[in-house]
Amino acid sequence: MVTRRYLAAAVQLCTGSDKAENLDKAESFVAEAARIGARLVVLPEVFLWRGPRGEECAQAEPIPGPATERLAHWARRLNLYLLAGSVLEQTAGGTAGGKVFNTSLLFDPHGAIIGRYRKAHLFDVDIPGHVTIRESDTRAPGDAAVTVATELGTIGMTVCYDLRFPELYRRLTMAGAQIVTIPSAFTFATGAAHWEILVRARAIENQVYVIAPDQVGPSPSGHIDFGNSLLVDPWGKPLAHAADREMVIFAEIDLDYQQKVRRELPCLDHVKFG
Amino acid sequence: MVTRRYLAAAVQLCTGSDKAENLDKAESFVAEAARIGARLVVLPEVFLWRGPRGEECAQAEPIPGPATERLAHWARRLNLYLLAGSVLEQTAGGTAGGKVFNTSLLFDPHGAIIGRYRKAHLFDVDIPGHVTIRESDTRAPGDAAVTVATELGTIGMTVCYDLRFPELYRRLTMAGAQIVTIPSAFTFATGAAHWEILVRARAIENQVYVIAPDQVGPSPSGHIDFGNSLLVDPWGKPLAHAADREMVIFAEIDLDYQQKVRRELPCLDHVKFG
Repeated sequence: MVTRRYLAAAVQLCTGSDKAENLDKAESFVAEAARIGARLVVLPEVFLWRGPRGEECAQAEPIPGPATERLAHWARRLNLYLLAGSVLEQTAGGTAGGKVFNTSLLFDPHGAIIGRYRKAHLFDVDIPGHVTIRESDTRAPGDAAVTVATELGTIGMTVCYDLRFPELYRRLTMAGAQIVTIPSAFTFATGAAHWEILVRARAIENQVYVIAPDQVGPSPSGHIDFGNSLLVDPWGKPLAHAADREMVIFAEIDLDYQQKVRRELPCLDHVKFG
Repeated sequence: MVTRRYLAAAVQLCTGSDKAENLDKAESFVAEAARIGARLVVLPEVFLWRGPRGEECAQAEPIPGPATERLAHWARRLNLYLLAGSVLEQTAGGTAGGKVFNTSLLFDPHGAIIGRYRKAHLFDVDIPGHVTIRESDTRAPGDAAVTVATELGTIGMTVCYDLRFPELYRRLTMAGAQIVTIPSAFTFATGAAHWEILVRARAIENQVYVIAPDQVGPSPSGHIDFGNSLLVDPWGKPLAHAADREMVIFAEIDLDYQQKVRRELPCLDHVKFG
């Protein structure tokens, strides 16, 4: 039985390199979102730890492990669906060539991990004077698209740079996604030019709700993230838009409204080149 | 030999149901664009005739035929590439079940038709109080994606409602498109909500120049078109944006700049689910 109207929340953070502090802070925002009434709370990418590339392997977590136990506990205690933006995931026996996965996790209100998505597209860019990042130096890509059917509708899981690849969102939508999550740590230069347009385009062309919490402000790894977290409806309207600080934004998910949009402008029935 | 920097133009029109008048008006705008120095001029969808659905079959043209002869003559005389947004195309022997194709044509400076794209996605929507259109009642869809290599770069051809289908633009880009044309007659309600976001998203995610001339104002068939014609660069920046009237907008196409964008942010090398 799917709940067709409920409150969703996106948490915007400026995550540092002290994992215990980061967990405490994330917990207080999740608890606040729960207190306001959110049934689905989405944390940003790397909410657990942001720091220098060279330390990523050492900071990675087993899944399940101590950090995910704590996240599971929040979901249970607060009785909500928790999308843990991303956690750097240890790989057993060097299966990823000594690299880590950038893994997004979905917890149900029983604390069970019901979705695990490993970021498929890694951010390797070199824009002189703005940003040079080679995510693939320290991280290994996943290779599967992930949708999860829940009491709150079917959720399609993506992370940050995935946003530039419309074919992934199309695939999630064709697999039934009604809500798409895009936890991010979008850099300032690319964010100012592309973030809102791409987030809204994914909502419009797939007629999905998009929940896109972003990191905001300086990262310990040296760049600045864009913030401007968004909740967008299936017509492409931004229902909530974060200010330039750590905060929670809220919007109602209404699956009946989504059905109306899809009935009136049935473009998903017209896909020919998919 | 490809010219790497040149001026392109998009013509915004409010096309009526008098074909001779429409041709004269389009000619004067194309001639003006040529006078300013445009090497590539793009007309909007149905620039030759807009009118009631019931008259479409009678108004359709053979290709080649009298109207395309005249377009070829403009291209030759003005020595430019002319993208004739779209023409309703007669089908011989009822091959399309008595319907017409909505066909976009590219003329080279010799007046030869070097590209012919039949709109693949037909606009069948029913948004109560705003717009109800069933394009497929009178028109048949094409089924092929079209790119054309020219002296001005490789051009990917699309029309209006195609804009909602990112997989078509990905296909054109992977086939080498550097410039994408989207001649349109985008309705006001959907245009206000979606036009600029989707046009810019196609440019950003494919790192292409987008030339998107739109119809503006009331159509003889009863609805109002959105205008807001755009020329967008491969970083997603709108270089030119039309006012709410018939006019020509201009921007420089710079294929070296495009190459720089693609080198610095090489997302097209990272496509995994295409």
